Amino acid sequence: MKIAFIGLGNMGAPMARNLIKAGHALNLFDLNQTVLKELAELGGSISDSPRDAAQGAELVITMLPAAAHVRSVWLNEDGVLAGIGNGVPAVDCSTIDPQTARDVAAAAAAKHGVVMADAPVSGGTGGAQAGTLTFMVGATPELFATLQPVLAQMGRNIVHCGDVGTGQIAKICNNLLLGISMVGVSEAMALGDALGIDTQVLAGIINSSTGRCWSSDTYNPWPGVIETAPSSRGYTGGFGADLMLKDLGLATEAARQAKQPVILGAVAQQLYQSMSQRGEGGKDFSAIINSYRKPE
Amino acid sequence: MKIAFIGLGNMGAPMARNLIKAGHALNLFDLNQTVLKELAELGGSISDSPRDAAQGAELVITMLPAAAHVRSVWLNEDGVLAGIGNGVPAVDCSTIDPQTARDVAAAAAAKHGVVMADAPVSGGTGGAQAGTLTFMVGATPELFATLQPVLAQMGRNIVHCGDVGTGQIAKICNNLLLGISMVGVSEAMALGDALGIDTQVLAGIINSSTGRCWSSDTYNPWPGVIETAPSSRGYTGGFGADLMLKDLGLATEAARQAKQPVILGAVAQQLYQSMSQRGEGGKDFSAIINSYRKPE
Amino acid sequence: MKIAFIGLGNMGAPMARNLIKAGHALNLFDLNQTVLKELAELGGSISDSPRDAAQGAELVITMLPAAAHVRSVWLNEDGVLAGIGNGVPAVDCSTIDPQTARDVAAAAAAKHGVVMADAPVSGGTGGAQAGTLTFMVGATPELFATLQPVLAQMGRNIVHCGDVGTGQIAKICNNLLLGISMVGVSEAMALGDALGIDTQVLAGIINSSTGRCWSSDTYNPWPGVIETAPSSRGYTGGFGADLMLKDLGLATEAARQAKQPVILGAVAQQLYQSMSQRGEGGKDFSAIINSYRKPE
Amino acid sequence: MKIAFIGLGNMGAPMARNLIKAGHALNLFDLNQTVLKELAELGGSISDSPRDAAQGAELVITMLPAAAHVRSVWLNEDGVLAGIGNGVPAVDCSTIDPQTARDVAAAAAAKHGVVMADAPVSGGTGGAQAGTLTFMVGATPELFATLQPVLAQMGRNIVHCGDVGTGQIAKICNNLLLGISMVGVSEAMALGDALGIDTQVLAGIINSSTGRCWSSDTYNPWPGVIETAPSSRGYTGGFGADLMLKDLGLATEAARQAKQPVILGAVAQQLYQSMSQRGEGGKDFSAIINSYRKPE
Repeated sequence: MKIAFIGLGNMGAPMARNLIKAGHALNLFDLNQTVLKELAELGGSISDSPRDAAQGAELVITMLPAAAHVRSVWLNEDGVLAGIGNGVPAVDCSTIDPQTARDVAAAAAAKHGVVMADAPVSGGTGGAQAGTLTFMVGATPELFATLQPVLAQMGRNIVHCGDVGTGQIAKICNNLLLGISMVGVSEAMALGDALGIDTQVLAGIINSSTGRCWSSDTYNPWPGVIETAPSSRGYTGGFGADLMLKDLGLATEAARQAKQPVILGAVAQQLYQSMSQRGEGGKDFSAIINSYRKPE
Repeated sequence: MKIAFIGLGNMGAPMARNLIKAGHALNLFDLNQTVLKELAELGGSISDSPRDAAQGAELVITMLPAAAHVRSVWLNEDGVLAGIGNGVPAVDCSTIDPQTARDVAAAAAAKHGVVMADAPVSGGTGGAQAGTLTFMVGATPELFATLQPVLAQMGRNIVHCGDVGTGQIAKICNNLLLGISMVGVSEAMALGDALGIDTQVLAGIINSSTGRCWSSDTYNPWPGVIETAPSSRGYTGGFGADLMLKDLGLATEAARQAKQPVILGAVAQQLYQSMSQRGEGGKDFSAIINSYRKPE
Repeated sequence: MKIAFIGLGNMGAPMARNLIKAGHALNLFDLNQTVLKELAELGGSISDSPRDAAQGAELVITMLPAAAHVRSVWLNEDGVLAGIGNGVPAVDCSTIDPQTARDVAAAAAAKHGVVMADAPVSGGTGGAQAGTLTFMVGATPELFATLQPVLAQMGRNIVHCGDVGTGQIAKICNNLLLGISMVGVSEAMALGDALGIDTQVLAGIINSSTGRCWSSDTYNPWPGVIETAPSSRGYTGGFGADLMLKDLGLATEAARQAKQPVILGAVAQQLYQSMSQRGEGGKDFSAIINSYRKPE
Repeated sequence: MKIAFIGLGNMGAPMARNLIKAGHALNLFDLNQTVLKELAELGGSISDSPRDAAQGAELVITMLPAAAHVRSVWLNEDGVLAGIGNGVPAVDCSTIDPQTARDVAAAAAAKHGVVMADAPVSGGTGGAQAGTLTFMVGATPELFATLQPVLAQMGRNIVHCGDVGTGQIAKICNNLLLGISMVGVSEAMALGDALGIDTQVLAGIINSSTGRCWSSDTYNPWPGVIETAPSSRGYTGGFGADLMLKDLGLATEAARQAKQPVILGAVAQQLYQSMSQRGEGGKDFSAIINSYRKPE
């Protein structure tokens, strides 16, 4: 299959690599020439613009840092919509606000009958390399059926969330809850420690009780409780606090536009912001627990 | 076994009933004469005071509403410590602050060599009746070994948390996290709905992703998502918001004494307080989601 | 003086009227034809576009609802910058984010050597009509000297805040604090009432002590404490909660961009959002106190 | 006048000194022998217990660190109520919860017809030494009339707040608001600085606008804005963060008992708690602004 792949950063590059391995012919575009050459050596062909990449492609995939990039890559004069063929399926895998996802999809539909999906991912760079990402897909049932086999070559769970935009909604709602839960677990673990219970015992009780959650039973922020969690290796190599901050920013901004209050979510956002301001935004987000622990 | 059981309210009465059924001889005390007579008919004997109940007992169990009751039932002139035999094991199953648990245990140890445990429960009145409670036990290993078989006649999970006081710590830390998680799930579900994703789909995604938690996968606050949850029957018959409010009050007060911040916990407490002030403290605590939904 | 005035809503129309009264010749533009005719009868002349209005003007003033309008009115093909003469002074009185203010000013400077100021106002529609607004002006000292006499025909306090953008910064920082203070006064007054102190006495003590603030001594949210405050007339006719919500949204978004935490500000925003969701966004913002009072 | 004065700490000692200077005969009691001797040299006489101090006194004044001390000093076997004469006026100047104030007053009334007032102070150790304290007095009108001239020898503003307990209510409500306002000013000033406005200019605008408050115009937390504020001398010598923490703890606990939500107050309490946990509880409470400033 001839696929245009635009946006070859930490996530996009390994995703594209998996598609090349799966036998697809890729039109590649990115501003970074190094990564372009690297992927071209694996078999992809380099394009001069998103428009060029889209020309002749049977499927267009984009993976970009933020909404502003999505708008320009799709809508600019040399953007995807200037090159894409009529009726060609398309999917944006960036994590952006639902409204931009819907706006760009509407522009795609208006100009070319292009049916577009949003499909933000979770799983991090590790999941992108291993091909084990989760894709949260907002698309018509027909487009979902078309995309599913291709996305499955880059990920393990391909979830249909509803119409275009709902992929973003699913992701930001999940990550809103995740951001809150991690702070909640941090408060509970730090309080338990301060009051004098063994943290390993406390985690065990929580994990078999009503406080049970992924942030406690899989990714516990207290060092040593879960050997495989970032907290047990100095809060490195997981989901950075600055990425959580980005997602909470998307959630509270989407909430503002929808006139929907999110009280704990707003507080959690500010707590990660404080952590980032102290210069710790590059650590795994579970390091938020250090905001609750007495400095040594 | 001769057991003194003091405090026969909504929780204590069914717990005592299970011990009588298991063949123990119970000395009963409560201020409520009706429940005393009811249990006496099942085979218990009525005492005139905590002291009388404790006299001759081989084990003393108390189940009381709050710390003030625990202090008076144990420490008053006609309290348990005035009647209990030297070295008799004892356990308080009330949910109170860890400091009072430790203070009363220290008084018990000082006066009579009584070794005392704290063992707050979770599982509600349903669990008390069915004998499926969880006991979080703070006790020496020897006392835990003694208590375990008796508690197992009233509950299913008997967890050893550490020394006396740690049962309370485990419970308030778990419920602190539970109170936060439920608000978090409520914010995420209400936001998703406002943004236009199907709530059943959203819950499914969360439950297989990093937002997964008991408040979402077992007790989801959105009506209809989990058929067995209180939200699917008008927020009746679960864990009342006023009980959650009590536990969050214990958590933030224990945190204050330990000089430990609990930011989301403090906000969650105030949100349940607002709910209670609006006259909805008797509803299941998952009804907090109504604070986030547009009134119809 | 020949002045282009663009944006003739609830604030802009009375401001323009005051300039006409002061003897200026106005080029008027708005999408609302009714208000255009009304002002034309007072002596202004109607333009077909922002570009037309700007042509030949010695000063351009805009007063628009939000950043998107400011961008389009200034930067579009038929926008102000397409018509304005080289070196003509200009001022935008809208309340928008500081970054947009700076961006548009930079575009003005780049294209035409136009020196632009931002000058958001406070004082409401009453102040606009009475000519008693406060202008918070971000401008070079030279531009401030030029604008000051004209702004003084629409307002009483013309404050120089620094370079372009600082007018917006001053306004959102002040209103951030105002939004927090009003919630703080509401919590203090409602708590005092619940505990049993006379609210008039409490307000008196606060106002002569360290809790003293404008939200208490001039605009107290408890009905009857300040006779002239909106709280004493059913929370009507002041500064609507939805306007406070807009300003807190600007503050938290500017904070996010500046990577600066604003914890109480974020919570306050969500509390006004809840109030608005309940359908009370049209009331004066001091009605937030009703979120803290037991329903009758 | 023969006055019993019990509790001679940082506040009590200079207050007692002012009464001795004013010509009163003082019966003194404290556990600290050094301060007792010091004051005895000025003319007071040392008592062996609160009971002894109260015997024969025409007025009893207590000034103690917390509610537990007030209960024991008044109600113990060798406490004030065991020695005080029938109908003797009495006043507790400690800052404690309103309920304890009412309970002890009720005990006083029941035992001896003693009419008791609560009269917490503000003004700090500086005010205690200079005799410029503010007394917030909860008392019957008759008792207030009796106390007023004596309190005026230790303070400048003697405010009648209502019945017994209302002194405490006034103080905790004011300080709740103060604690919130200081965080609010800190957020506004730090945001303004991060966005690029001069902080001196910003403070000037706030102080002549709707954000105006004591925390900004008299005690601004940004160094150099107010020369006489603790922020301009390294956050030393003012009202310590740990004292603010105590008062916010009283406020949120009183709110909990009154079933009254205090959302911003609860968050502010936790923020000062974090500051204290970092080891900065001894600094002036306005140093909370450092939680919002980028570390250098």
